[in-house]
Amino acid sequence: MRAVLLNTGTELLAGDVHDTHLAFIAREIFALGLRIEERRTVGDGAAIGESLRELFSRAEIVFVTGGLGPTSDDITRDVVARLLGLELRKNAELLASLKERLKARGIKWVSSIAHQAEVPDGAQILPNENGSASGLYLKADINPQVRSPHIFLLPGPPRELQPMFRESGMSILRSIVPGPPLFERRFYKIACMGESLIEEAIGRKVLSILGVELGYCARPGEVDVRIIGDRAALDQADQVVRSELGDLIFTADDETLEDVLVKLLIKKKQTLAIAESCTGGLLANRITNVVGASAVLLAGYVCYANPKLIEEHGAVSEQAARTMADGARKRARSTYALATTGIAGPSGGSSEKPVGTVYVALASDGQTKVRKLFFPSDRETFKQLTAQVAFEMLRRKLI
Amino acid sequence: MRAVLLNTGTELLAGDVHDTHLAFIAREIFALGLRIEERRTVGDGAAIGESLRELFSRAEIVFVTGGLGPTSDDITRDVVARLLGLELRKNAELLASLKERLKARGIKWVSSIAHQAEVPDGAQILPNENGSASGLYLKADINPQVRSPHIFLLPGPPRELQPMFRESGMSILRSIVPGPPLFERRFYKIACMGESLIEEAIGRKVLSILGVELGYCARPGEVDVRIIGDRAALDQADQVVRSELGDLIFTADDETLEDVLVKLLIKKKQTLAIAESCTGGLLANRITNVVGASAVLLAGYVCYANPKLIEEHGAVSEQAARTMADGARKRARSTYALATTGIAGPSGGSSEKPVGTVYVALASDGQTKVRKLFFPSDRETFKQLTAQVAFEMLRRKLI
Repeated sequence: MRAVLLNTGTELLAGDVHDTHLAFIAREIFALGLRIEERRTVGDGAAIGESLRELFSRAEIVFVTGGLGPTSDDITRDVVARLLGLELRKNAELLASLKERLKARGIKWVSSIAHQAEVPDGAQILPNENGSASGLYLKADINPQVRSPHIFLLPGPPRELQPMFRESGMSILRSIVPGPPLFERRFYKIACMGESLIEEAIGRKVLSILGVELGYCARPGEVDVRIIGDRAALDQADQVVRSELGDLIFTADDETLEDVLVKLLIKKKQTLAIAESCTGGLLANRITNVVGASAVLLAGYVCYANPKLIEEHGAVSEQAARTMADGARKRARSTYALATTGIAGPSGGSSEKPVGTVYVALASDGQTKVRKLFFPSDRETFKQLTAQVAFEMLRRKLI
Repeated sequence: MRAVLLNTGTELLAGDVHDTHLAFIAREIFALGLRIEERRTVGDGAAIGESLRELFSRAEIVFVTGGLGPTSDDITRDVVARLLGLELRKNAELLASLKERLKARGIKWVSSIAHQAEVPDGAQILPNENGSASGLYLKADINPQVRSPHIFLLPGPPRELQPMFRESGMSILRSIVPGPPLFERRFYKIACMGESLIEEAIGRKVLSILGVELGYCARPGEVDVRIIGDRAALDQADQVVRSELGDLIFTADDETLEDVLVKLLIKKKQTLAIAESCTGGLLANRITNVVGASAVLLAGYVCYANPKLIEEHGAVSEQAARTMADGARKRARSTYALATTGIAGPSGGSSEKPVGTVYVALASDGQTKVRKLFFPSDRETFKQLTAQVAFEMLRRKLI
């Protein structure tokens, strides 16, 4: 079954709000073997009707977000009822619960709010635990005179849509979608290796497997390989990917490199200290985003202005990185320490050490390893690339 | 002129990546009086051609993002050339610069990379300073036999697209779009104040001005107020906003709270140290994202596991925050120091100090101020909210 998504809202097109519905819905419905084939975003006007008319003929399931509120630009309900030739009727129960909701919150009743209690004939109400706008489900061909797909009208705010989708939407979808999913999805994440090198390693071999779809998503210092297909094909592809990339894959799950590191350190009952110059706190920040980080991260030092201990060799040098890592490990009494020092730019470079030069050190019992790299890019990307190298060095030490 | 955006990428439809291009492009082109009328998102396949065919007849300007990379799923360039009946030719200059780029980075040349040097006849190359995929601009009716709008092909990664768009895209757009824009937009950013309080302060008064459009965008610890209208109306609205909110506005420009702090500290020749427990490096990381941060941030300490100096009073207490800030300021010999200690959760809470409890301290000459707050939310939001409070405390000290 083909599914499409229509996001409505002038604020989305104006760039004031980032849509999160596509990612949320796509991940939820994948478990049913459903995918979003197309997403459109339009403003709060006539374009809603035009897009829906086009999408109705292209999909069996249409999700529409936004435009269910009480204000004059909330017209989704009316547009859909008109397109399908359905009468809108005030639902007494919904009206009563709306009144109660507002009273409990001390909000004044305004007549326009009653609009939210209007329901197209035959539609099913999806309760909203976190707001006043109920969702609506209209089954396929709800008006026998008009061909139409299954339609879900959902509220715009993510904190309202998400629980509603999980609690009401998914069970309706389960009853619509026939049988177990035909295809599944697998992920492999690889740090510090270029997209084209990864493709060279696995591309041809994976694509030679019948019925397999292969995709790459590159972020700074990381490539996610995504393979979609039926289980048998995926098992075959899995063998290829693992035999070609092996330990370079840091996870085949939905987790970050720092998640993997914290998990490995906890498992080994080992600890970490971090001394950052050019990354300025990014390593510590990423590690502490992980639940349980407090058990492994003993200390972080951000020595951003030229610290004394490295004056001798210059702040950006192999020796400085080594001294920082060793010093951090000693002071924090940790199993490992990571250190970064480099020239993030835009100023501070020289012909000998241009902007983008960076040293990453990993200190452990008995030895301290330093890598020199060159990442000439904007500040934030430079920091991310450096963090990926540092984390990957530690991961390889831990596996 | 009507402008539309087509985002390509199976990873977007799969929910693995959030699109940021719509928001970025919408904000940029607003300065020219252009708005995005519709956005579509499709996968890396036949849908690209189908959507483009439809969009070509609906708009005078079409932006396409993604699919310009070296891998087999990168087909945008080919699809557009075919639709417009244009020959793709290898561009020798582009090929040479690609080879040079890879060599400088020590990346192995793979033959598929050469695909990125192919250019449709008559297209203008938009240089990519931050990646290997050049953008392309195809003027309207580039092939006189095929009616087509102005087309911009842009790379998928935001850190590549954004500088390219600003440096090459905007100047081309300026030459296409006739006359000065009819409406303008102003922004006001406010930290640590709720959306509804801001609306109560300015909403009715601003909306009483004829021809003014008012919007709010709330993020963790920050609200952006957006006002659209002609210049005369905006000047009137500006007076209202500034007289009602005054110093609460930390900027009316496109800059972050940390940008403002670094600028203020540089101007005053003052310095900062940071001691972080619950924010785990986020404050230092945000400050060091700002160009020039090295002049003001002397040191950062991430004392994530219970540090000794606060054992007496418990790690999360007013006294602990005070001691951390004072200690950091003394050790780093900085003008100011910020400290954070709290319970990010999900574990570690107690009935007396539940998850979400946080203390933020600001030490300066002669006095140390501590604020207690309560942010019961997920870890990353908790960290962001705490960072906003810390930064806003310092900003108010500096103005």
